[in-house]
Amino acid sequence: MMEGKLLISQMIERAEKLFPKKEVISRTSSGIHRFTYREIGERTRRLASALEKLGVERGDKVATLAWNDHRHLEAYFAVPGMGAVLHTINIRLSPEHILHIINHAEDKVLLVDPMFLPILEAIKDQIPTVRAFIMMTDDDPLPDTTLTPIYSYEELLLEASPNFEFVKDLDEHDPAGMCFTSATTGKPKGVVYSHRGITLHSFSLGLADTGGLSESDVCMPVVPMFHVNAWGLPFAATWFGTTQVMPGQAFTPELLAELITNEKVTITAGVPTIWLGLLKELDSNAEKYDMSSLRTILCGGSAAPMGMIRAFEEKHNIPFVHAYGMTETTPLVTLSRLKSYQEELASEEKLDIRAKQGCVVPGLEIKAINDEGEIEWNGEDMGELLVRGPWIADEYYKDERTVDAFKDGWLHTGDIVTIDEEGNIKITDRTKDLVKSGGEWISTIDLENALMAHDTVFEAAVVGVPHPEWQERPVAAVVLYPDTVVSKEELLEFLKPQFAKWWIPDDIIFMDELPKTSVGKFQKNALREQLQEHLV
Amino acid sequence: MMEGKLLISQMIERAEKLFPKKEVISRTSSGIHRFTYREIGERTRRLASALEKLGVERGDKVATLAWNDHRHLEAYFAVPGMGAVLHTINIRLSPEHILHIINHAEDKVLLVDPMFLPILEAIKDQIPTVRAFIMMTDDDPLPDTTLTPIYSYEELLLEASPNFEFVKDLDEHDPAGMCFTSATTGKPKGVVYSHRGITLHSFSLGLADTGGLSESDVCMPVVPMFHVNAWGLPFAATWFGTTQVMPGQAFTPELLAELITNEKVTITAGVPTIWLGLLKELDSNAEKYDMSSLRTILCGGSAAPMGMIRAFEEKHNIPFVHAYGMTETTPLVTLSRLKSYQEELASEEKLDIRAKQGCVVPGLEIKAINDEGEIEWNGEDMGELLVRGPWIADEYYKDERTVDAFKDGWLHTGDIVTIDEEGNIKITDRTKDLVKSGGEWISTIDLENALMAHDTVFEAAVVGVPHPEWQERPVAAVVLYPDTVVSKEELLEFLKPQFAKWWIPDDIIFMDELPKTSVGKFQKNALREQLQEHLV
Repeated sequence: MMEGKLLISQMIERAEKLFPKKEVISRTSSGIHRFTYREIGERTRRLASALEKLGVERGDKVATLAWNDHRHLEAYFAVPGMGAVLHTINIRLSPEHILHIINHAEDKVLLVDPMFLPILEAIKDQIPTVRAFIMMTDDDPLPDTTLTPIYSYEELLLEASPNFEFVKDLDEHDPAGMCFTSATTGKPKGVVYSHRGITLHSFSLGLADTGGLSESDVCMPVVPMFHVNAWGLPFAATWFGTTQVMPGQAFTPELLAELITNEKVTITAGVPTIWLGLLKELDSNAEKYDMSSLRTILCGGSAAPMGMIRAFEEKHNIPFVHAYGMTETTPLVTLSRLKSYQEELASEEKLDIRAKQGCVVPGLEIKAINDEGEIEWNGEDMGELLVRGPWIADEYYKDERTVDAFKDGWLHTGDIVTIDEEGNIKITDRTKDLVKSGGEWISTIDLENALMAHDTVFEAAVVGVPHPEWQERPVAAVVLYPDTVVSKEELLEFLKPQFAKWWIPDDIIFMDELPKTSVGKFQKNALREQLQEHLV
Repeated sequence: MMEGKLLISQMIERAEKLFPKKEVISRTSSGIHRFTYREIGERTRRLASALEKLGVERGDKVATLAWNDHRHLEAYFAVPGMGAVLHTINIRLSPEHILHIINHAEDKVLLVDPMFLPILEAIKDQIPTVRAFIMMTDDDPLPDTTLTPIYSYEELLLEASPNFEFVKDLDEHDPAGMCFTSATTGKPKGVVYSHRGITLHSFSLGLADTGGLSESDVCMPVVPMFHVNAWGLPFAATWFGTTQVMPGQAFTPELLAELITNEKVTITAGVPTIWLGLLKELDSNAEKYDMSSLRTILCGGSAAPMGMIRAFEEKHNIPFVHAYGMTETTPLVTLSRLKSYQEELASEEKLDIRAKQGCVVPGLEIKAINDEGEIEWNGEDMGELLVRGPWIADEYYKDERTVDAFKDGWLHTGDIVTIDEEGNIKITDRTKDLVKSGGEWISTIDLENALMAHDTVFEAAVVGVPHPEWQERPVAAVVLYPDTVVSKEELLEFLKPQFAKWWIPDDIIFMDELPKTSVGKFQKNALREQLQEHLV
């Protein structure tokens, strides 16, 4: 067989050739813009040509500080297409961490949305590898800045060649992109994505039984393009000629609902907090929107509460698909769909299955281990999930923490799961969040989901708090829906029939807002710190 | 990223783990049998263990002479799973050619269906590399044979280990299978398939926009498993947990229609002559069958006449999908589906598009060339189709004819195509069948399709016949439907409005049957020979 290298450039080339009329709809600070793949292809080639003129060479890192828009999409293909590496800076990291990762990655050129100028201006004298800044904007003249040398993205494109030929003599294992993930302690950890990994991951997104991404879809990634490549959707969607809707910056639930309505979005993807927001908006203003085009909400990043899945499906008739992955896994590992013979189950049983994270997708392997070895697939035993396969990282970029997470050829995810007889994984906790009470394990996520199933509870987080007798005991923090009231005792009574006695939290605390991480996950370490002395 | 090797063993392992209850329905000479993937998995491991005991080592060739049944499926995974190479012998080749390819491949063990014993008994003393024969049958005792040493497949399995571990320290480029394709002149040419090629091809079959093969499908490959791995369907179907129906030997249109009805087949695949037969059966006995489960008939191997596509879709409401590929391409290269914005076209326009062979699937590249270089994608210019990518062969197995077909990194397919603005290829001819009349090209396939669109014409073949003045001129041979009558003049009149005057055949000959190749294609060289002096 021919080598037939798996390179990212083939994706944009296919879109140019087969889908030149299909569109990318991009929301920027200047409004909503429409580009065909013919235009995106030409602009991508111009961007690569411009970067080449600025001295970007094979293997160099080119970074973005940007939202989901057409220019970011162009960088997705221009940078790997010239053999360089796209570093999508996680703009929700602290300024100190952004400074660190720019230097750690040795970024050479920064593509920046004007709204992030202040962050860069504050650190510009401490990032010696950066040779040029490119402002991603339609504004002319450019906004004032102390960054130098500074270029206009659009002016560079005008002066560049539309006929840039993508570099083909790469190795498919060569790096194409990188992304840093925040760590519980210490600096963010870098993950490098290869051409091969991203290409195979894109295949998996197109499979009928996974994302089923198709030319006939209209795909809106709400998950940011600086976060695991918006789950790889922009790559796969371009390859398959899918219409893309890029929601841009500072979007609201109203705006997302409007984009779905106006652009007839068929598939969208994001973390549970996004969908909680959309759900509230639909509950309040259903008559304003038409959600009938939507065939799938893909939800990952953390476990979605069953109540939310039920509300989307039963109240709003929107299929809600649970998936699991992480920065280290490009990210798709599992996805929850019923098997054909499960379609006949009662609707509650089906919901129980679909609230799990689902079966491993073709191409990867999973297992879970605890102190006694590999766990049985019985839906009961808990173990840490291990993953391996061609789109799983095998190291953190120049980082000693590699040895902790990558062992014996498997990624140790730090997620505690059960696996049922059908192969569905269910995340029961993070290794570090698990409550260890008197030598037994208590899943904080199970308790949180149970709490969130209560009518009054909008969000809940459970953490293990040091306890003089039991080592640790669970304590819950909850945020109620506006204008609802409930007592601690009522919530405890609500939990009791659902769990063993020793699982019931020792206390429930009411809060106005839960601490969240930069990507919208509950920040349990902050909560844990706050409650350090709570049970002493 | 991890290497994550693309090995075939991961497919059967996934079926065992995630789909142990799903079924393979197998028709053998003893009737219809049902096996779960758990059973198929265990039997596959036993077969590998048995072959190991017989001395099969990594890289050895193990050959099959068999129809589509469960034992053949087990060999599909056992042989590559132990690092050996599965040679699926094309049983429609002549005995001389079968003798040649066994020796050319240096097959070590032959797995044989009892009905092929006479072929092997006749050549048994001329195949010195073969050390053992295994009889694929439920019969006990085994049928008498002069082959030696001879083993019973089922007895070997009983004595073998169900815990055989598939070999993982292979290179993904290692050979997994091979298949010989008949050549116009000379010996059959061998194509070797790698683990990587078959795995990537399986991904492509599962994409929503190509085969869309899913766990919820019931897949019946009618195309033989000795012919390009039944188009790769058994691999992909096993990987995705799809129910499989194996129709076995000597099937009739009635039997296929019954299997579709009884097993609720959703997708089936084969060459046009198979579907012509099924169409006749449905036209005659529609009330006997229920075709409502069928979501796709995949048709390839040669171009399907538009009339047949129309009849399946309009008369029987069965979606008919045209695809293109060849032994050298594993085989999927293109597949004809409407783009979303073409759904609004008039039904005749849609049919025109769907009668083409379609757009190249993700992962491959195509172009077409003629004497002036690369042709434009305008639907008019004709050129030879060139293909490249990771599941395209790069040589014929130990064969000097490699240099003719594999040039500059492209497979030269020998097929003459047009490519339209949307990227749809349309096969207009084989390089060798094209009629060259006075320096201009005439597509025999276009003429054949036009003839077959006439109510009376069941099959038609057009060949170029030597002509004293024009070098070559087209002559048509037609087979009429039973109980229909039409004159040569009527057919010529029927063609005239559809073609330039110089395209109209010089003669039309009525026949009872057209000569066909071993895989059911019109055998034009035989016809050409027969008509050599026809216009002199």
